[in-house]
Amino acid sequence: MTNTQVTLVQIDNYGPWTVTPEPRREADLQTMQSRLYADISQFVGNRGGYTFFTRFDNMIAVTNGCSLEDHALLQESVGNRYPVTLSLGVATGTNPVQALADATETIQDAGSAQDKNRRECLKGRVIEPPHRSEGDIQIAHFDVINATGNYTDELNAFDTFIEIEQGYAELMRHMRYAHGSLSFFVGGDNVIVVCPDLGRDEYDEALSHVEEAVDVEMQVGVGRGKSAHEAGYAAKHALETCRTDGTRVELEWDTA
Amino acid sequence: MTNTQVTLVQIDNYGPWTVTPEPRREADLQTMQSRLYADISQFVGNRGGYTFFTRFDNMIAVTNGCSLEDHALLQESVGNRYPVTLSLGVATGTNPVQALADATETIQDAGSAQDKNRRECLKGRVIEPPHRSEGDIQIAHFDVINATGNYTDELNAFDTFIEIEQGYAELMRHMRYAHGSLSFFVGGDNVIVVCPDLGRDEYDEALSHVEEAVDVEMQVGVGRGKSAHEAGYAAKHALETCRTDGTRVELEWDTA
Amino acid sequence: MTNTQVTLVQIDNYGPWTVTPEPRREADLQTMQSRLYADISQFVGNRGGYTFFTRFDNMIAVTNGCSLEDHALLQESVGNRYPVTLSLGVATGTNPVQALADATETIQDAGSAQDKNRRECLKGRVIEPPHRSEGDIQIAHFDVINATGNYTDELNAFDTFIEIEQGYAELMRHMRYAHGSLSFFVGGDNVIVVCPDLGRDEYDEALSHVEEAVDVEMQVGVGRGKSAHEAGYAAKHALETCRTDGTRVELEWDTA
Amino acid sequence: MTNTQVTLVQIDNYGPWTVTPEPRREADLQTMQSRLYADISQFVGNRGGYTFFTRFDNMIAVTNGCSLEDHALLQESVGNRYPVTLSLGVATGTNPVQALADATETIQDAGSAQDKNRRECLKGRVIEPPHRSEGDIQIAHFDVINATGNYTDELNAFDTFIEIEQGYAELMRHMRYAHGSLSFFVGGDNVIVVCPDLGRDEYDEALSHVEEAVDVEMQVGVGRGKSAHEAGYAAKHALETCRTDGTRVELEWDTA
Repeated sequence: MTNTQVTLVQIDNYGPWTVTPEPRREADLQTMQSRLYADISQFVGNRGGYTFFTRFDNMIAVTNGCSLEDHALLQESVGNRYPVTLSLGVATGTNPVQALADATETIQDAGSAQDKNRRECLKGRVIEPPHRSEGDIQIAHFDVINATGNYTDELNAFDTFIEIEQGYAELMRHMRYAHGSLSFFVGGDNVIVVCPDLGRDEYDEALSHVEEAVDVEMQVGVGRGKSAHEAGYAAKHALETCRTDGTRVELEWDTA
Repeated sequence: MTNTQVTLVQIDNYGPWTVTPEPRREADLQTMQSRLYADISQFVGNRGGYTFFTRFDNMIAVTNGCSLEDHALLQESVGNRYPVTLSLGVATGTNPVQALADATETIQDAGSAQDKNRRECLKGRVIEPPHRSEGDIQIAHFDVINATGNYTDELNAFDTFIEIEQGYAELMRHMRYAHGSLSFFVGGDNVIVVCPDLGRDEYDEALSHVEEAVDVEMQVGVGRGKSAHEAGYAAKHALETCRTDGTRVELEWDTA
Repeated sequence: MTNTQVTLVQIDNYGPWTVTPEPRREADLQTMQSRLYADISQFVGNRGGYTFFTRFDNMIAVTNGCSLEDHALLQESVGNRYPVTLSLGVATGTNPVQALADATETIQDAGSAQDKNRRECLKGRVIEPPHRSEGDIQIAHFDVINATGNYTDELNAFDTFIEIEQGYAELMRHMRYAHGSLSFFVGGDNVIVVCPDLGRDEYDEALSHVEEAVDVEMQVGVGRGKSAHEAGYAAKHALETCRTDGTRVELEWDTA
Repeated sequence: MTNTQVTLVQIDNYGPWTVTPEPRREADLQTMQSRLYADISQFVGNRGGYTFFTRFDNMIAVTNGCSLEDHALLQESVGNRYPVTLSLGVATGTNPVQALADATETIQDAGSAQDKNRRECLKGRVIEPPHRSEGDIQIAHFDVINATGNYTDELNAFDTFIEIEQGYAELMRHMRYAHGSLSFFVGGDNVIVVCPDLGRDEYDEALSHVEEAVDVEMQVGVGRGKSAHEAGYAAKHALETCRTDGTRVELEWDTA
């Protein structure tokens, strides 16, 4: 049974800020939000978690191993170094989508994303160390089979991007509605999926679904661990096996 | 008539690097690639250009105003500060998709994205200052109508993201195949589209298409300029007019 | 009795790298080394430690609260994101200078700072959690009395800098040879000093020495704690008392 | 005849900000100010200038090649991405110290460094392109002879730092009062000096002075150029000649 700790990171009142008093230079907004993401990714990442940029103004993180004190410190540190502040909602559960829904609600209950008076709220609960276990996280790392040979070196860069986006859009919807999983594009042709307790059949089915729906061939390595890093690292190794052996689905705990 | 200068930025041999000798920590890869993007966005942005993260290992920039010397300096500076290097392909044209296709080809001709021996290649041509003009760039800035009220404050953060992703995926395909335009998600509920010379009818049609196809209501402000910043800034102002007046399409040059 | 854990952070073979194959652009070196420092400051800082840029190629950190695993993770993360690598030496003791001397030796024993074959060495020992205590660190935060009124708003920026540098150069030598302390300029007119167990008399004497030697008037707040952050934060509060009450030395534990 | 364009970069009301409402975490201040410096160094550096961190809250840059529009853009970009703002004073002259004095005055006239109401002021004048020439900048790059062998690999890291600081403190004072030059420690054992039109005798004399005063042996390479980068790059090459030939002073324009 998985037990995923999910944190929703929301920039307070960001939309209005970007156009006050006048629209701000787009390149500065892009720089600021991608560096903010990078800092959060480092903070969470060197505690064993994963952070996904998602919409940048709303980022989603798997934070097993981060205490509420860690969350408060991240909030303080960002407030000291950026022109914007963060609100954080944290929740846990066997189903990542449900955990995120709970995390989202704690922030929505505190006020609108564009509420001037809702700043730096920190709400929710974490998994205390004694209750953490080896199987808390299951992560699946998907990529597109031979993306470089079939797309990057063949099509123009935008058409390659469209193919990969299509594969991602289909996979994200399918994994969310069929399997209660959260899928994130992480660059290149890679998609990292935060899953509940799924087995080989569900992954086989997901690959077939994407191939039939949008004709994109993917492969997947799956790992388990006490933290996102542990599970994700095992998934990367399993994916390496797909690449070398030409298999489509590799579960690191089931290498029979 | 537009004349868009497009640069394809490709990290050399990035895929193999990320798993050599062992897969690298995902949080470090995410941090490194988003900071690299941020630096390129600043460099190009403070010369009037726009850079889009796209797949991160392949980024697309609108670089009217950047010389080949500027491109070489960016390449040198990144090579001095990052563990990876960049290859750059530059091309120009009235049709942004065709310009990107030409830019891509110059890089593909130099070698595969995973060719160990293809490093820091810089190929292509720019628009020389005397040939630049006010109407070289047309940029359309789309966003989702009342995204905060309809989605962010209502759905869980992932379901909101799915809605916005769907709108983007549909818009990007439509604008590329129907109108030769390059569409990029830039965070929140915003999509910036680099267009050839389009008019009100094409934008009306695009909004209707997206609404019919995936039931996402968007609005758009459109601007023209000598640089991406000028055109994009005018587009942002036009979009502000949509927000205040409740209109769906605003062309900054046609406010009758 | 203090028990300071000191880490020497040395960039491997940095000097030769900066001129290979040709001298690299100075602005890129400055950018890279100050960002590397910033990342280390964040990593150590959000674990309660302090990092000082010192010479940039050799940085000194107070790392009580950081395990050897944390040190290894910092090393791995920097190696994944920068074109250079780090060697780390860690040592502990009641005398900060002696602890740093021991930390330095562990690295020197592994090879020269310009030895091509000495990369990412990690040597030394830390204070295990059960042995940490409230009084492990003593930090003194000095600044120049009314620097803005007497210097910044009056002299040209370089002459102000010379005055502050002179005060720092005198203070660093005196605190090192008379009191076994490590002094670091941290910007503005601030000097943070990592001390053994010192009392009011030593600080009074240090202030008088600097004033007599170079005619710079300073004040100091002193704090104790389990970590550099705790001690340093108490010192900042004590320094605020100097500023408001016009006193020269404030010890947070002795406010009689 | 040199003609140096100097910019004083001052963070507005920084001191009070660092302790409002409470003292901020030192590690966050260190991270923020070193990243701000890095960004300014990149912006100025990729236009051919040099930026020195100096006191961090007051930085000094050699900006030949940067227009007032460039300065305004830097100000805007920092204001969009940081929690602090910058005031900039620019001046030019044959004597770098006098130019800096003039740049400082323009900012001091606008208000105190701790004046709440003085924000983002931009004052002064630049050298227009038609008036720029090859000999506008003279830069001397000093380092300590065999610093690694004599200090870094022998003494503890702090005692090495003290030796280098002493050499720097003596050199900065001497070059300022005897030769109207601005000296900046740039890390390692390197000092970059922005000079008026000096010859071999002045450099020989400076080296002897430092050696007699504090027993630190240095060598120097000197270059000229239209920009700080050109002059500094020539100086680096000249310093390489010192290192290889064992000479003490190398002027790139006088290799007889």
